[in-house]
Amino acid sequence: MHFASDNAGPAHPKVMDALIEANSGYAMGYGADRYMDEVRDRMRALLEAPDATVYLTATGTSANVLALASVCQPFQTVFCTPVAHINVDECNAPEFYTGGAKLTLVGEGDVMTPNALRQSIDAEGTRGVHGPARGPVSLSNVTERGNVYTAQQVTDLCSVAHSYDLPVHLDGARFANAVVATESTPAEMSWKAGVDVLVFGGTKNGLMGVEAVIFFNPDHAASFEHRRKRGGHLFSKHRFLSAQMAAYLRDDLWRDLATQANANMARLAKGLQASNQVSFTTGAFPDANMLYFDAPRAVHRHALENGATYYIEAGRIDGSDPDEILTGRLVTDWSQTDQQIDEFIGLISQKQS
Amino acid sequence: MHFASDNAGPAHPKVMDALIEANSGYAMGYGADRYMDEVRDRMRALLEAPDATVYLTATGTSANVLALASVCQPFQTVFCTPVAHINVDECNAPEFYTGGAKLTLVGEGDVMTPNALRQSIDAEGTRGVHGPARGPVSLSNVTERGNVYTAQQVTDLCSVAHSYDLPVHLDGARFANAVVATESTPAEMSWKAGVDVLVFGGTKNGLMGVEAVIFFNPDHAASFEHRRKRGGHLFSKHRFLSAQMAAYLRDDLWRDLATQANANMARLAKGLQASNQVSFTTGAFPDANMLYFDAPRAVHRHALENGATYYIEAGRIDGSDPDEILTGRLVTDWSQTDQQIDEFIGLISQKQS
Amino acid sequence: MHFASDNAGPAHPKVMDALIEANSGYAMGYGADRYMDEVRDRMRALLEAPDATVYLTATGTSANVLALASVCQPFQTVFCTPVAHINVDECNAPEFYTGGAKLTLVGEGDVMTPNALRQSIDAEGTRGVHGPARGPVSLSNVTERGNVYTAQQVTDLCSVAHSYDLPVHLDGARFANAVVATESTPAEMSWKAGVDVLVFGGTKNGLMGVEAVIFFNPDHAASFEHRRKRGGHLFSKHRFLSAQMAAYLRDDLWRDLATQANANMARLAKGLQASNQVSFTTGAFPDANMLYFDAPRAVHRHALENGATYYIEAGRIDGSDPDEILTGRLVTDWSQTDQQIDEFIGLISQKQS
Amino acid sequence: MHFASDNAGPAHPKVMDALIEANSGYAMGYGADRYMDEVRDRMRALLEAPDATVYLTATGTSANVLALASVCQPFQTVFCTPVAHINVDECNAPEFYTGGAKLTLVGEGDVMTPNALRQSIDAEGTRGVHGPARGPVSLSNVTERGNVYTAQQVTDLCSVAHSYDLPVHLDGARFANAVVATESTPAEMSWKAGVDVLVFGGTKNGLMGVEAVIFFNPDHAASFEHRRKRGGHLFSKHRFLSAQMAAYLRDDLWRDLATQANANMARLAKGLQASNQVSFTTGAFPDANMLYFDAPRAVHRHALENGATYYIEAGRIDGSDPDEILTGRLVTDWSQTDQQIDEFIGLISQKQS
Repeated sequence: MHFASDNAGPAHPKVMDALIEANSGYAMGYGADRYMDEVRDRMRALLEAPDATVYLTATGTSANVLALASVCQPFQTVFCTPVAHINVDECNAPEFYTGGAKLTLVGEGDVMTPNALRQSIDAEGTRGVHGPARGPVSLSNVTERGNVYTAQQVTDLCSVAHSYDLPVHLDGARFANAVVATESTPAEMSWKAGVDVLVFGGTKNGLMGVEAVIFFNPDHAASFEHRRKRGGHLFSKHRFLSAQMAAYLRDDLWRDLATQANANMARLAKGLQASNQVSFTTGAFPDANMLYFDAPRAVHRHALENGATYYIEAGRIDGSDPDEILTGRLVTDWSQTDQQIDEFIGLISQKQS
Repeated sequence: MHFASDNAGPAHPKVMDALIEANSGYAMGYGADRYMDEVRDRMRALLEAPDATVYLTATGTSANVLALASVCQPFQTVFCTPVAHINVDECNAPEFYTGGAKLTLVGEGDVMTPNALRQSIDAEGTRGVHGPARGPVSLSNVTERGNVYTAQQVTDLCSVAHSYDLPVHLDGARFANAVVATESTPAEMSWKAGVDVLVFGGTKNGLMGVEAVIFFNPDHAASFEHRRKRGGHLFSKHRFLSAQMAAYLRDDLWRDLATQANANMARLAKGLQASNQVSFTTGAFPDANMLYFDAPRAVHRHALENGATYYIEAGRIDGSDPDEILTGRLVTDWSQTDQQIDEFIGLISQKQS
Repeated sequence: MHFASDNAGPAHPKVMDALIEANSGYAMGYGADRYMDEVRDRMRALLEAPDATVYLTATGTSANVLALASVCQPFQTVFCTPVAHINVDECNAPEFYTGGAKLTLVGEGDVMTPNALRQSIDAEGTRGVHGPARGPVSLSNVTERGNVYTAQQVTDLCSVAHSYDLPVHLDGARFANAVVATESTPAEMSWKAGVDVLVFGGTKNGLMGVEAVIFFNPDHAASFEHRRKRGGHLFSKHRFLSAQMAAYLRDDLWRDLATQANANMARLAKGLQASNQVSFTTGAFPDANMLYFDAPRAVHRHALENGATYYIEAGRIDGSDPDEILTGRLVTDWSQTDQQIDEFIGLISQKQS
Repeated sequence: MHFASDNAGPAHPKVMDALIEANSGYAMGYGADRYMDEVRDRMRALLEAPDATVYLTATGTSANVLALASVCQPFQTVFCTPVAHINVDECNAPEFYTGGAKLTLVGEGDVMTPNALRQSIDAEGTRGVHGPARGPVSLSNVTERGNVYTAQQVTDLCSVAHSYDLPVHLDGARFANAVVATESTPAEMSWKAGVDVLVFGGTKNGLMGVEAVIFFNPDHAASFEHRRKRGGHLFSKHRFLSAQMAAYLRDDLWRDLATQANANMARLAKGLQASNQVSFTTGAFPDANMLYFDAPRAVHRHALENGATYYIEAGRIDGSDPDEILTGRLVTDWSQTDQQIDEFIGLISQKQS
């Protein structure tokens, strides 16, 4: 019953098979391997973007900040939500890679609205050289609280950004989950909506550790390779990244895994809803693979003490009042079984707070 | 009727005299001049801190960010208010000089409270290496909205910071005005309150362009000289900085000028209050030399069109509704005459909105 | 006949087996996996350093620059040879990660001598704040030209560094090869010689992509975890790094692979020597797994056109004079067969220039 | 007898007068003062460059590194001589402001040759993303050893740079002295020769502390204002910089002061030559205002003990052998009198080593 994160599960067997196959004989390093050629072709086809520039890195943070640094000057500011991964979970990596850019926090929660974005951009344009210049807009889809923007919503946000000539970065650590949840195509959810640089995540969706960075505007990509190298993110044995991503793109594996992850969450959320023990923090039924929910401490404790694993807001589980409401986070990936999910629902349901 | 900023007025005649006197013959460069010896002695005596380390720079931003960088690691975050000069008026200089540290914004306005500070620090300690580590606390006194912390209030804030082992930086661009306003001593308002590194401003209080950076803990000062040089802030003809600061410290010139600036504001505010045309945004009567006030657009326009100079929230003066309330900012220094002040009060008073 | 680099060959089967074994069920991310516990224990035992701090990264550049940044201030300079990997093959990554430190190039070639090091350090101490402050000394063993320092030579260089209170970083991308070549122990070649922070490479010696960074002084390690995260080098599915390194340390796999790589080079070099067609650029018979050699263009061309792969000084192979002497670089790893080696020797031998 | 540096003398009286005149009433800050309008007009006229962009900073290091950062990416390398001020006297400021660029040292001494430059550029283009990308070429005229490039020589160097599409920065801390020495025009010595961004120094030639940064290509200037602000180099009371530079440009004061400085050196060098006690290190008779010369320790000691001030290679004066040859550096500015110069010549001449 492991719902702590979609980066805690195993890599998919097809990915392991691809690694084993790739581990044969010699291959030129640093991206000059034949699997990277396959990745490039498949990614362009999938995204309906024959001129896209495609690179790989091994971590989500590196993918995000290399993408951002490619479209941001050190004296600019990046527009993102307060809970954006780049703001709260990358330990100043955006500031580091951009050479000191600032993050301007838009709105209050995880979902950015066009109005809030416009207000923030306007507010950053009033101080001349005393404040930062306006820089890229960074969106996350799926958001860090499990919400999903539709392609239309992404389009609306990109329109605001572009009306100020600002580029848009999409942190797609769970891009596959968002595409599946909205029944859109990868193209509709990225460049057709106005996204300039996309991080198409693989690590949280069944790979060992590979993310693709895709630039739809070749000018934006000009400095990426040097930036990746000087960040220490260019792999000598690059074939082992390429092989994972190639497997991910073959036969729509990315889609199958995200579909399964989302389905696992749907089953989980439906069961929890029926339990009458919890309420969904973000209000709506989860469309993708992440859920924040409120439940009494006693309910959480019962689950955690009986084999479930997931995160509670830091340090809160130890309080004494069994009725105090705490927020838990559940994440699914392709690997949970129906039995595990149902067992967890059972744990939550049976406990009378 | 110039109330745009305390950096728009002239340098005090005594400062010019000191420059002329210093401009004679040869002097060793880079801080090895005899005026710097005088500065060091006088500053230590004034601050009752015989072991303090004293440096000069020529701009407020450089003083702040060199001070901060001396006590902040690139993977840390600085705690400051949302309107702190380091957040809104230094164009990412803190991020640049610290090598990429982040700013965590405490509370809503210009005045930080111990509770808000504690909450912010607590919140930054929950994400391990995923979030930034906790770094220095940065206060401004006078604040950027014209409020003044008492020495006791500074003490309370420093106590919170030190309870987490965090150093405290005080942006004292208007330190003299704060000391005068609170009838405290420079020592009470700095190290006795717990301040670790102080920027003692001169530029806004009658100098051409000199700020002192004072470290009360020699360990914090260890890297300053190299940082100043690599920031391009070490002056070859350093005597011209020293001479200004020496004049500032002789015969309490700093105090006389701040006293005059504060008195000018008191006269101005009293007159405005009596006009019944304005309200003071920050609520209280200004203790120091800065005032934010609300008045109808017509009132502002009348004043600005008849020779007054001051800032209105960006771009707002051009609106059409004469009754719309706009916020203006007034700043005094030592150089306004009673006549100019009274003339401005007259302009504001006579206009019926 | 692939001698281009020791990062072009496959990962060792035992490493693949370890990955497959690790890919089972759930594991806490970011280094909290059980394989990392094993790595820590085994590494400390191997290095006879029970208090050493052990971290993993996935690339050699990231390991080097995170290690350096941990012991270097932005206003310092790093002492290394002109051909050091950190100078010529990391695209400014050291400058980036240290926040702008400089590299001072010691001597002329790949082997640093104590005298040259002392001269360089002395020369960097004459300009006060105008020049950089002295920072860490960085050695590479095996060097970038295939030479090997004995433990005594490393000791002598560390003694010079320590006499100036400077820490020593050892770039051990081929540390295993150096240890095997000198018949020393890992401890003798690192902390017993005075090394403060060691990069113990795995990628060039049979892993997919893992390097260990080991600090022998815990003070030096204090900032590493935050630096690794903000560099984007902390892996969520960290178990896949740990599993590789654990396999590397079990049953002395690291030693077996390096022994084989060195033996392959010995066979290769002996054969080349006998051919009378080449001369060894670095003079001596190669102790480890890398060789620079001079041969006429026609000899190189014959080899390259008949299936051999290795590097020639950039762009030179296309010249017209068949007798012009060009320098080639050969690197072996554990994976070449005797047959491949002998075939290559045959190619070189048979060609009359 | 002060020949330590041209930054040790006083500011010229006309400069002080201009400061006093500027210190009257109120002036908009941050460069919006009327003296800056005058500076812009006069500088464009002087340089015959009506579209040039002109900025001021207060130190030579800040001018150089802000200029460089405007035309250099963090993953590039700057080509300069080993003794360039940016390499040896700016404490990593170029690395800091460029965000981590490297310096590639061209040739051996202070004078760059087209061939050496071409070789260095070629050598930096062979490693793809593993090495830095090629960045700007930085020249100093007068050089740091007192040599002067003719306009033709600058043209030849710029031609090499431009043939690789690299921009050229000219560190003109002593630009006026170079122009006077070569009887060229400022235009011939800058943009007509191919210089893209010029630092036109004032501090070493009679100002208190002001340097002009002039971009001849407006694209290069695009980020300067934000970079200057985030570097802490934008002066609130900017009129005090503008006023100095305006005085410098009025009535060719810059030329008169440089002419006098060069003449002072000519008198000094002629006298030293006649003394038969010294030899000129750089070989030729000095064209500008700086001289490196060799003399026995006893000769140096005699001069220094009798009132002369100048630099000897660090720490060397204390040795015991009176006959050992040491290198001294002499610099003149506009302020030395013939009497002081002759007295110094006398000191050198009278001592029998």
